[in-house]
Amino acid sequence: MEHCFIGLDYGSLSARGVLADRQGRILAEAEFPYPHGVMMGTLPDGTPLQGEFCLQHPGDYTDALFSIIPALLQKSGVKKERIAGLGVDFTTSTVLPVDASFRPLCLLPEWEKRPHAWVKMWKHQGAHAQAKRLNDVCRAQNSPWLSRYGGAVNAQCLMAKVMQVFDEDQELYENAHCFLEAGDYITSLLTGAPAFSLSLAAAKAFLQENYPDESFFSALHPALKNLPREKLMDRFPEAKKGFPGESVGLLCWEMAEKLGLCPGISVSAAQMDSYAPVAGVGITEPGTMLMVMGTSTGILLLGEKETPVEGVTACLKNTLYPGLYAYGSGQSSVGDAFQWFVDQCVPEKYHQAAKEKGLSLHGYLTELAAPLAPGETGLIALDWLGGNRSCLANSRLSGMLLGLTLKTKPEHIYRALQEATAFGARVIVEAYEKAGVPVREIVICGGIAVKNPFLMQLYADILGRPLKVSRCAQAPALGAAIYAAAAAGKEKGFPDLFSAVRAMSAGDFLSYVPAPARHEAYAPLYREYLRLHDYFGRGGNQVMERIRG
Amino acid sequence: MEHCFIGLDYGSLSARGVLADRQGRILAEAEFPYPHGVMMGTLPDGTPLQGEFCLQHPGDYTDALFSIIPALLQKSGVKKERIAGLGVDFTTSTVLPVDASFRPLCLLPEWEKRPHAWVKMWKHQGAHAQAKRLNDVCRAQNSPWLSRYGGAVNAQCLMAKVMQVFDEDQELYENAHCFLEAGDYITSLLTGAPAFSLSLAAAKAFLQENYPDESFFSALHPALKNLPREKLMDRFPEAKKGFPGESVGLLCWEMAEKLGLCPGISVSAAQMDSYAPVAGVGITEPGTMLMVMGTSTGILLLGEKETPVEGVTACLKNTLYPGLYAYGSGQSSVGDAFQWFVDQCVPEKYHQAAKEKGLSLHGYLTELAAPLAPGETGLIALDWLGGNRSCLANSRLSGMLLGLTLKTKPEHIYRALQEATAFGARVIVEAYEKAGVPVREIVICGGIAVKNPFLMQLYADILGRPLKVSRCAQAPALGAAIYAAAAAGKEKGFPDLFSAVRAMSAGDFLSYVPAPARHEAYAPLYREYLRLHDYFGRGGNQVMERIRG
Repeated sequence: MEHCFIGLDYGSLSARGVLADRQGRILAEAEFPYPHGVMMGTLPDGTPLQGEFCLQHPGDYTDALFSIIPALLQKSGVKKERIAGLGVDFTTSTVLPVDASFRPLCLLPEWEKRPHAWVKMWKHQGAHAQAKRLNDVCRAQNSPWLSRYGGAVNAQCLMAKVMQVFDEDQELYENAHCFLEAGDYITSLLTGAPAFSLSLAAAKAFLQENYPDESFFSALHPALKNLPREKLMDRFPEAKKGFPGESVGLLCWEMAEKLGLCPGISVSAAQMDSYAPVAGVGITEPGTMLMVMGTSTGILLLGEKETPVEGVTACLKNTLYPGLYAYGSGQSSVGDAFQWFVDQCVPEKYHQAAKEKGLSLHGYLTELAAPLAPGETGLIALDWLGGNRSCLANSRLSGMLLGLTLKTKPEHIYRALQEATAFGARVIVEAYEKAGVPVREIVICGGIAVKNPFLMQLYADILGRPLKVSRCAQAPALGAAIYAAAAAGKEKGFPDLFSAVRAMSAGDFLSYVPAPARHEAYAPLYREYLRLHDYFGRGGNQVMERIRG
Repeated sequence: MEHCFIGLDYGSLSARGVLADRQGRILAEAEFPYPHGVMMGTLPDGTPLQGEFCLQHPGDYTDALFSIIPALLQKSGVKKERIAGLGVDFTTSTVLPVDASFRPLCLLPEWEKRPHAWVKMWKHQGAHAQAKRLNDVCRAQNSPWLSRYGGAVNAQCLMAKVMQVFDEDQELYENAHCFLEAGDYITSLLTGAPAFSLSLAAAKAFLQENYPDESFFSALHPALKNLPREKLMDRFPEAKKGFPGESVGLLCWEMAEKLGLCPGISVSAAQMDSYAPVAGVGITEPGTMLMVMGTSTGILLLGEKETPVEGVTACLKNTLYPGLYAYGSGQSSVGDAFQWFVDQCVPEKYHQAAKEKGLSLHGYLTELAAPLAPGETGLIALDWLGGNRSCLANSRLSGMLLGLTLKTKPEHIYRALQEATAFGARVIVEAYEKAGVPVREIVICGGIAVKNPFLMQLYADILGRPLKVSRCAQAPALGAAIYAAAAAGKEKGFPDLFSAVRAMSAGDFLSYVPAPARHEAYAPLYREYLRLHDYFGRGGNQVMERIRG
């Protein structure tokens, strides 16, 4: 009997799952869009949200389990006995408070009207003040580990989000048994016991062997002195912990029955959704960069040692592979920015024209924008609609558009936004090289990368490097399945993570080669981008922070 | 028999006419939208336009005459014998080349495919290089008159436009008998002989008693040495010339017949469309500023002496009233910028919602934007979508929008554009005061001012001054009729312009009083505007000029 593995990839708007065999062949895939999506204006019962909230409904996550796993079994025809492991990746830091039974507080009637009871999604931007306090304390204490987070902590990390709850809803904070990464929430649910990913905690909660010590937390606030022991993983000394590819427990009876699986199969520690595709596309060597393009872009690079690189939000050992360092950077808004534009700024006549051509608005705008020469739009943009979480590490930065005239057309703005995200990616690549961390090859995956060849050519032209674009639309979920196969061990799966990746990863790539003339033509525009980037991002004019609502 | 007067106001998109009696009562009004509108992409026969062209069709201007004047007579029931004068105002500098019979070259088959044969509208932006050359020569020669144009010449003046033809289509330049302001084209047509406005020539062609001398023109180019005598008003030493309110001839037999009027009635010298409403709303005293809001905003202020003021595009004696100086400033894009946004950037769902509410898109966006507190959009804009023709005098500047986030809505951007135009107006008012030219009162007129009370309150709040908004929708055309009445002389009209204005101008105003709290709240945003204004406009970062297509 050949064993198979299930990987679940929890993204921003939906969860996707694959069922893969030992050769990495995807025998079935399924998707579950979150019915509640991203909640920015109101809670599910209509309670209005004041301030910058980006929330999710944890019921959507469990409904995804109950929808995807039976669908995978049914579509593939694979019998449940062949399934030997489950792996999960999740957006991070996506954080929720739970009670002692790990029930989300937001699902309990007494808390459901409290915004802070709900899941704070990774891109929740409300914790600026807390991020600032974290950074102030780190600087005051000269925290030695801060360099591993690019020298600054951002508002999206778990600590800032937990502190925001403490600051803004103390009663709820006190009644939370603990705060969980949503990835750990799912693995704990599957195993019926606390199950923690050391990768998530290392990346988003400053765990390095241990959490920072009491002096750090008490400097944040005296009442937070014992935060790790009172509200985080350290509350559960007996809990199963592991890196992705390591087992954090076995599927419990109750969940096995609900999911139609056999109890006792291995569950891998959760991985970050931006990290999982590194395994999915088969990267195991230092020097190959992965860009995962979706609503945001996650950028990962394996390294052999720890070198400070500006804008790296995490440089952490073992989070991707034992013994190697994973450098992580990111761009907050990529697909998000394009989607914002399509939702808010495209006139009626374009909707009609796209419909007549049978194209999506993205497709139609790309068709109009594609023939434009570099610089022809007369526009330049800063791509910080969701803040900047790379070199500037400042979530209060915002988007900018310059060069508008009465002749500016929607496709010009769309193209300028595309170019801006590519310039932003180039800033990140150059930061690695400047720091002496080599980038020998760039691999791109993610929905946008597969769907938009024009955009990939634009990235190749602006970056001035050949790009390998993975044709595997399910690289993160396949990565999760690979973690499951490694966690299942040598008998039913693989003896270690490296051999699981080599056996199962997707090898199908498209190549994009930069056009030298276009790369050259973008050089002056990139210089303009850099100048505006530094002026608005490095203190020349902090207007973006001052005018932010 | 009480005499009546016809005023014709040629705007950017249509011409409007009024028939008024000696008390200024408007007995009829009529409008004629230009069938060819503004031609930016192609000539009427489909010939594509390369570069920054803004052209018009002179047939639209004459069709307006033949449509409006008969309509005025018919609607009012006034017999043609009662009409004692005709006055015209026109956008400036709107320039066309004509042959020896004053036929527009573009209407002759041999020239109709040449872009430079057509009318260059005031906002035509193609003559940057020429404006730069003009400024270089002025500076090199230390031209004493340059201060009367705010210390810099812009690309919209007649000289720059004529030079562009010389530079880009020499054959056509040589075959042009002369280049005319469109206002003079109309009065010449009406009188059947060359008829020139000294006001237009003073404002847009550097005429001060005389044109600049030969050394100036030969420094521009040796072949341009005799430009005024070869291609401008000086070609016609016998021509009738006058300031608005003075007669430049009598209606000729041919045109009288075509228009259904009596020949021999007086035709006033043409006025600039932004100047005409000064008479229309009854301003005759120094210290009262008029803002004429339309696609652009024209700003005028009477003064008793000549004082240098930054951004003043003309400070010229007699152009408004004998013995007084008229200070003129302007904002290139106001209504234009709002319209650009509505045309290019408002999504389908807003169209539907506006339709359901029975509102225009402007009305709907204003309704959504009105409740927002100062600063609530989180955005700040620079309003230079058509360049800056006030303090920065640089047509190659462009619009900027800063503070974009994924939560930015169309109404936020619309509001930010509205605020930016008000900030731009405040910069101009403060430039006068800083220079010691008092601004005691502000009167606003124009279509937008009457239609959008919210915008007027916003201007009052941002300017921090009470505003008087004229309810007369036809202030420019009424001004033109007043000029006609003055030009008709004391027997049929008035003994001088002042008495014509006092008798006939419109006295119906709405008052807007600034809310102190909102004025206060806008103070920090105005400071941000000023800082960005200076950074992008005064050499901090000339990116706008560098990236311009």
